[in-house]
Amino acid sequence: MKPIRVAVLGSTGSIGTQTLEVLRSLPASFNVVALAAGHNVTLLEEQAREFRPRMVWCAREDEYIADRIKDGRINARWAEMDEMAGHRDVDLVVVATSGAAGLGPSLAAANAGKVIAIANKEVLVMAGHLITAAARRSGAEVRPVDSEHSAIWQCLWGEKADSIERLVITASGGALRDLSDHELERVTAEQALRHPNWQMGQKITVDSATLVNKGLECIEAKWLFNVPMEKIEVVLHRESIVHSLVEFCDGSVKAQLGVPDMRLPIQCALTYPKRVMGASVPRLDLKMIGTLTFELAPASKFPCLALTLQAGRTGGTAPAVLAAADEVAVHYFLSGYIKFPEIAHTIEDTLNAHSVVANPSLEQVLEADRWAREHANDRVKASV
Amino acid sequence: MKPIRVAVLGSTGSIGTQTLEVLRSLPASFNVVALAAGHNVTLLEEQAREFRPRMVWCAREDEYIADRIKDGRINARWAEMDEMAGHRDVDLVVVATSGAAGLGPSLAAANAGKVIAIANKEVLVMAGHLITAAARRSGAEVRPVDSEHSAIWQCLWGEKADSIERLVITASGGALRDLSDHELERVTAEQALRHPNWQMGQKITVDSATLVNKGLECIEAKWLFNVPMEKIEVVLHRESIVHSLVEFCDGSVKAQLGVPDMRLPIQCALTYPKRVMGASVPRLDLKMIGTLTFELAPASKFPCLALTLQAGRTGGTAPAVLAAADEVAVHYFLSGYIKFPEIAHTIEDTLNAHSVVANPSLEQVLEADRWAREHANDRVKASV
Repeated sequence: MKPIRVAVLGSTGSIGTQTLEVLRSLPASFNVVALAAGHNVTLLEEQAREFRPRMVWCAREDEYIADRIKDGRINARWAEMDEMAGHRDVDLVVVATSGAAGLGPSLAAANAGKVIAIANKEVLVMAGHLITAAARRSGAEVRPVDSEHSAIWQCLWGEKADSIERLVITASGGALRDLSDHELERVTAEQALRHPNWQMGQKITVDSATLVNKGLECIEAKWLFNVPMEKIEVVLHRESIVHSLVEFCDGSVKAQLGVPDMRLPIQCALTYPKRVMGASVPRLDLKMIGTLTFELAPASKFPCLALTLQAGRTGGTAPAVLAAADEVAVHYFLSGYIKFPEIAHTIEDTLNAHSVVANPSLEQVLEADRWAREHANDRVKASV
Repeated sequence: MKPIRVAVLGSTGSIGTQTLEVLRSLPASFNVVALAAGHNVTLLEEQAREFRPRMVWCAREDEYIADRIKDGRINARWAEMDEMAGHRDVDLVVVATSGAAGLGPSLAAANAGKVIAIANKEVLVMAGHLITAAARRSGAEVRPVDSEHSAIWQCLWGEKADSIERLVITASGGALRDLSDHELERVTAEQALRHPNWQMGQKITVDSATLVNKGLECIEAKWLFNVPMEKIEVVLHRESIVHSLVEFCDGSVKAQLGVPDMRLPIQCALTYPKRVMGASVPRLDLKMIGTLTFELAPASKFPCLALTLQAGRTGGTAPAVLAAADEVAVHYFLSGYIKFPEIAHTIEDTLNAHSVVANPSLEQVLEADRWAREHANDRVKASV
């Protein structure tokens, strides 16, 4: 069988490097034909020398990579991410970029009928309607990389779409799950960054503590699995072993479990419909784990979750506005400008001030994003 | 679509009546064309009047049913179970008989290329090699009805057989799971019959306390899923919510969960590959359950489990001998003749005295069964 030709967008980030680790373990099955990174040009160079892609790109220091292409140390040509994503020599695009950067390439890949492994949350949150519509037209296949969505996806293999009764997305509850309202008032960035189970970036770790992250995952799930928000539920599960569950119309429930390790869902997205040994992921031993717990996520404790789910139900530009306002608010919280509960207030205020556009174009989504950032910025500055 | 024509063998037992309940809820999809029962002729008559099968049979009081056929109160003809199971007007055979009674009909159905929903444990334990070989030749499809095997089966939908790394069968641990060795010495039949989660017959409830039942399920799983005994593990799970799990070669684990209710796995076996609302099974709410626990099943506490797994690994006539010795021993325990730990001793002694026949014919299996019953009987009588 011919190797699958892969473009990894965001190759130097956490998901990107783990994607390359998986690809490295399966050299006969995959060819890395394109690598795109943000700022870490030295790592990109190292990756390019190892995987010998035909196309490279980076967001900054164009000259650094350009020079190395010129002097032959990198044997590849410069190409924009949109070109990589839609290129006829690419079969599968891993979108491991962050923020709005993944939007254009994801749409290009969806339009070109590629297999798209999406790890970039904003792509489906901001433009799920555009991506799924394009994929329907072209026959592109969107596969999840997030552990929760991968769990749901795996539970749906061999099942019919109309059997789905409910998706249950598990949440660890993040670093602050056991604090009282009073303690949350005074929580520091350092405290919020101590995620109990997963090692991740700063922004997403705070989003795990507010459960904005979980709300965004519900919105992503809506698009990935074509399930209305009303049928998607969040359950607190401290151990992060059950990565999510699906309830079917007959009352049967299926769950996917595993030791928290992103290499497994990444590999599933790459090797589907096969499973392979590949990257040696630690094995789950339930006898060692002993106990798994499940609790309600109380709305009073997680106001950001309720806001995010509400934005998901509203649809249109609301999720993009929520995500932008959250990004601004988390930035100010991490910098020590605002207190933890102000994240929710900033989001709520921005959502309330926004006039939702239903079924927006990409331009309208990006405009809503810009507007929300500005509004949230002004709001924070006025409040401190 | 034409309704599926179903024969229910053992229609008046616990699984049989629940099967009819499911079939009753799906009148457009199924026709009950044959009913066979053991001794409960009045219930069989009632069922025959409701479902109007074309064939009926019962193990005793032939005259009672024969009379009602003659006088027209039952509008069906008398037919042996083997004939029903292989009849050209039957598509799907539910084998809900008990003991060796299901062997002949299951083989007939397997030879005739039917869909066989097997709830009769002994069929695969005693003659798994014959059933699976016949099914391979004829194209018959064997579907599990047991909650554990149904769980594994559901987790395998859409998966490739060679991806299976391990099957993990959950066990509640039965009524005596928290007793000390000393307390087990003095345990009464009444105590052993208090199963914490499932309402079942006496024999199987004691087998749940010894974990013989779980060992037999491992042997069944070996045949149903073509997985060697070495890859099948038993884990204590007190809550009986996770009905079993599958670990795949990539480290991913899938589980099927649900409120303990046999109507769900029965319905799955009937409606596969579809899921339908059907019998309204109570819904699982993990937030209400709260906690799920998993523990090792210590060999010292469950000697019968180790013996059963050993018989499974030995294969040939060993599982039939084990099952027969167990049935005799449990009978004497329930009658108050022997103490609880004597069940294990009787099984062990009978297994040790047996000369295993590899790849036995049905006649050799039945001969081993007869021999084991006699040996176990003599052994018990000599010891009291």
